[in-house]
Amino acid sequence: MSQVDTQLEDIRSQIEQEIPNDITITDVKYEGPELVVYTRDPKRFAGDGDLIRRLASQLRKRITVRPDPSTLSPPSEARQQVLDVVPEEAGISDLDFHADTGEVVIEAQKPGMVIGRRGSTLREITQEVGWTPEVVRTPPIESSTVSNVRNFLKQEREERRDILERVGRQIHREELSDEEWVRITTLGCCREVGRAAFILNTPETRILIDCGDKPGAEGEVPYLQVPEALGAGAQNIDAVVLTHAHLDHSALIPLLFKYGYDGPIYTTEPTRDLMGLLQLDYLDVAAKEGRTPPYESAQVREAIKHTIPLEYGDVTDIAPDVKITFHNAGHILGSAVTHFHIGDGLYNVAFSGDIHYDDTRLFNGAVNDFPRVETLVLESTYGGRNDYQTDQEDSERRLKEVINETYERGGKVVIPAFAVGRSQELMLVLEEAMRNGDIPEMPVHLDGMIWEATAIHTTYPEYLRDDLRDRIFHEDENPFLADQFNHIDGGEEERQEVADGEQCIVLSTSGMVEGGPIMSWLRHIGTDPDSTLTFVGYQAQGTLGRRIQNGWDEIPVDGWGGGGRGDTLTLNMETETVDGFSGHADRQGLENFVKTMNPRPEKVLCVHGDESSVQDLSSALYHDYNMRTFAPKNLETFRFK
Amino acid sequence: MSQVDTQLEDIRSQIEQEIPNDITITDVKYEGPELVVYTRDPKRFAGDGDLIRRLASQLRKRITVRPDPSTLSPPSEARQQVLDVVPEEAGISDLDFHADTGEVVIEAQKPGMVIGRRGSTLREITQEVGWTPEVVRTPPIESSTVSNVRNFLKQEREERRDILERVGRQIHREELSDEEWVRITTLGCCREVGRAAFILNTPETRILIDCGDKPGAEGEVPYLQVPEALGAGAQNIDAVVLTHAHLDHSALIPLLFKYGYDGPIYTTEPTRDLMGLLQLDYLDVAAKEGRTPPYESAQVREAIKHTIPLEYGDVTDIAPDVKITFHNAGHILGSAVTHFHIGDGLYNVAFSGDIHYDDTRLFNGAVNDFPRVETLVLESTYGGRNDYQTDQEDSERRLKEVINETYERGGKVVIPAFAVGRSQELMLVLEEAMRNGDIPEMPVHLDGMIWEATAIHTTYPEYLRDDLRDRIFHEDENPFLADQFNHIDGGEEERQEVADGEQCIVLSTSGMVEGGPIMSWLRHIGTDPDSTLTFVGYQAQGTLGRRIQNGWDEIPVDGWGGGGRGDTLTLNMETETVDGFSGHADRQGLENFVKTMNPRPEKVLCVHGDESSVQDLSSALYHDYNMRTFAPKNLETFRFK
Repeated sequence: MSQVDTQLEDIRSQIEQEIPNDITITDVKYEGPELVVYTRDPKRFAGDGDLIRRLASQLRKRITVRPDPSTLSPPSEARQQVLDVVPEEAGISDLDFHADTGEVVIEAQKPGMVIGRRGSTLREITQEVGWTPEVVRTPPIESSTVSNVRNFLKQEREERRDILERVGRQIHREELSDEEWVRITTLGCCREVGRAAFILNTPETRILIDCGDKPGAEGEVPYLQVPEALGAGAQNIDAVVLTHAHLDHSALIPLLFKYGYDGPIYTTEPTRDLMGLLQLDYLDVAAKEGRTPPYESAQVREAIKHTIPLEYGDVTDIAPDVKITFHNAGHILGSAVTHFHIGDGLYNVAFSGDIHYDDTRLFNGAVNDFPRVETLVLESTYGGRNDYQTDQEDSERRLKEVINETYERGGKVVIPAFAVGRSQELMLVLEEAMRNGDIPEMPVHLDGMIWEATAIHTTYPEYLRDDLRDRIFHEDENPFLADQFNHIDGGEEERQEVADGEQCIVLSTSGMVEGGPIMSWLRHIGTDPDSTLTFVGYQAQGTLGRRIQNGWDEIPVDGWGGGGRGDTLTLNMETETVDGFSGHADRQGLENFVKTMNPRPEKVLCVHGDESSVQDLSSALYHDYNMRTFAPKNLETFRFK
Repeated sequence: MSQVDTQLEDIRSQIEQEIPNDITITDVKYEGPELVVYTRDPKRFAGDGDLIRRLASQLRKRITVRPDPSTLSPPSEARQQVLDVVPEEAGISDLDFHADTGEVVIEAQKPGMVIGRRGSTLREITQEVGWTPEVVRTPPIESSTVSNVRNFLKQEREERRDILERVGRQIHREELSDEEWVRITTLGCCREVGRAAFILNTPETRILIDCGDKPGAEGEVPYLQVPEALGAGAQNIDAVVLTHAHLDHSALIPLLFKYGYDGPIYTTEPTRDLMGLLQLDYLDVAAKEGRTPPYESAQVREAIKHTIPLEYGDVTDIAPDVKITFHNAGHILGSAVTHFHIGDGLYNVAFSGDIHYDDTRLFNGAVNDFPRVETLVLESTYGGRNDYQTDQEDSERRLKEVINETYERGGKVVIPAFAVGRSQELMLVLEEAMRNGDIPEMPVHLDGMIWEATAIHTTYPEYLRDDLRDRIFHEDENPFLADQFNHIDGGEEERQEVADGEQCIVLSTSGMVEGGPIMSWLRHIGTDPDSTLTFVGYQAQGTLGRRIQNGWDEIPVDGWGGGGRGDTLTLNMETETVDGFSGHADRQGLENFVKTMNPRPEKVLCVHGDESSVQDLSSALYHDYNMRTFAPKNLETFRFK
């Protein structure tokens, strides 16, 4: 009998001692980080609202109770029972019964009404129906990503359970080493922006944090081939943690599955969906540009299948000696500052991922409040000594000026934007500006994956800023549903029509003018001196966006919108850069993030910034707050304990 | 056809263009770092003294010319021809013909006379006999280690050729990466003394430097299990470099062969033999103490079989992007400061290994003269702020005082000493002191492996200090052959006789009183208050030697000399510590080593010292010479380029 089985037997007898004699336990097993208890008496369990909480705190585990399959009423009967218990206004749109786990997935427009006050409606469902309810939101805007992911996970349910069980046993395996050390190895995004990837390593456990590509330098990928990264193979990694969905953090995660990785990816639910969307687009763009991407869509599906979503604030065991907690990072939907608690009080590391310190229209500002953190790994995109950005208020004013000036000239405004994050922020700015009459009402065309990304935002309003979340909950106030927003879904023909038509604003991917439909917009509108190309986001070194900002006006238009091989276009439109809409904290924000931490970390590793940015930030934090700071190179290993 | 084969074909046609038309080349292949050229006309090759030198410089390879087997005269005939060519005074003691390579190994008392002026006698042998001569010294004192190693290598000659050919092809493989970086990972001996082990790593190549145990802490071994060390397995290492034979640098090298390593060990010839001696003793001691050692004698033989000996000063390719050169380190016989030249001028790293900066009686001081070195990895055993040792002259005076005082009391002097290094130094001191009448003539008993180690010293006088080498070449002046030295080879009975007998001096292993016959001497003499236990070497933390130095007088005597389980003995003898005989540079020596380097390195990693020693030395070198210095922990990775 393995050590995990012995452990589970112990736990089972502890549970049996704790619960009333007449409740029968039929099985106890791990599924991912959770302990799942099967019982013939799910109603009795649900009847005592405190029982599960008591067990969880006693066993120090997250506990899910499931009915033993033999006790379940038939789905046809159960369906009606659920509809009877849940108030009609919850807007149930789908019910999906899984006999293998005894779970019923309830998709509803208002999940809160299915849950009830402190879970009371859920408990009622369990008591009435026996099946264990799991609630998901009906996307207010139809999102093919969300429905594809949900359908896929439904199909793969059995394999997914096997994965979760295997991962669960891994997490709760016996600790083997009596040594104690904590190390971080830098595999990318050091003294550069792009290819984020780190290994966090203890004698027990090896965790890969992010695994991205580098925009503008496709050959520069994380150093997965050094032995510190995948060691004796990808199966040597215990877990992958993804801080957010942008490709410079997520693009190469599917590659791990090609290399034989078969373990969990911990991230938030919106990041899972956005990651799928962006990775499939990454393959698509590569195919269109005639490149062979390093993996295929099958591996994207593997990544999704292996994702274990966690919510902000959940303290979760992911290894015998590592607990993680995600916190809002304010950068994009689902982005997470990740706190690692290692050993039993041995050491704490926080990875900022990409952060925005102040509140934006979309998100609350990044969380920096941890009970303990000895080392902080901090992004430094705007860490340079002069990287103070305009206030968002001033930026919005300037953007409105640019729009008004362009409008008066009779031109159009073209804004390259990341599909995820800045586009939605701009939509909120534009919607309000038109509503208030600050800029003329005109169509706002959303091209690339912006519409789809927006749909994903409205599926997970819990991850948005408080007041925005409340507006979305009331469908008639959902700003993303405003009339002026047009989803470009008619391809080149529609683009040509828009280009030939009335004044308008175009938001299009890619955000750094590295391919995508923005290339087509440049072809259609780029020669028009009345129109304005407006940069609102960070343009990495080596990208076409950065080169245009620096004055280049000969643009290659190969392969997009029918341009022949080697064609170039002379850019005659105005170009403007409006700072302050970045999803990244500026220098002041980064300093504030560190300054207001309590306690402050002993050590800060400044990463994810150009060489001068990380050096500037590192030396400023050292001088101002007397912390040990570093500006690591890629491929270094720091030992902390 | 592989890339290496193509390369060899190119080389062959270059050689054919360079040599006269009537010399026939039959084969060109790599054997280890050497290019071996087979020819039907070895005499013609040998006739032109400059031809091989010209080819070597043109091809930038080390070249060996061998006769095609078809051209060789029969050994019986060749034997007489060799004896005719070589002057009788050379003292040929063995001739061994290897038909497979066309080599004849000539063992002679005076190898120099077999070689002749600038190799003239060797060339004459080739011209007369056809066979290629290789010369080794007849050990002036019979050494079972040397003869065992030589016989073993003779037996394994065919497999060894295969190994060399495989290694040769590996060394000359195509460079695959267009990246450039240089990293060092610390696997042991950082902020501690013991378990020396480092990985030097480029995109092409992974080299393990040393792989030792830790005296007094047998559980603490180099971190071979972290992926940086053996990566996807021991076969992932390209080469092992051994700086000297002491077990804290060499003990775990055979373990690599158990793990599947099958590559070369680069070291000096005396280090190879001493390594074999010490590793077999390591197994022996473990067996006597009832421990299961991590490998068996078969792996020691593998290590010896895979050793490619290099001489001081030979610049040798060991990988497509790495050349190494050994230099005298002054620490023990064969010890080497190792210089790594990486890439074509990319970067240079020197590993000091253990060094002695000043000349001693046995060795010239450590070499610190390199054309370029950006990073120095420096031992720091005596790097502490107060680790200034007595001059050797004063130390010798004090030792003679201790001996004279003990003699006058009627006691005996017992000196725990490493078999290798300090024992021979002390033998030289004692021999001279008796010759000069500074101390009374009395027997000096050598126990443990001291005698055998001494025999190995006399086999390789080229590695000793100039004047000592010259004395050994004249047998009647060989100080190690002085009458008073007695090899304890009669076991406990002889020890008892010595203990009961006249006044004398005993040199015995182990040097840190961690088992070995010294335990038996303590049992026999430890209770005698007239005798003196005299420490002359470094006693590591955790060893019994260190504890006795600190005043412990209850000594466990288990398992040695018949003491029962759990027996202890109360030490009544005087204890004295005479500094200044260490094989290690003291603080001043370490500073001098760095200070007199020209150019000085940009960075220094201070390793191989207790925590305070490395910190003190690191901060002193930083302040005094304004270099970037580090006191790494184990398990860190530094990137230099």
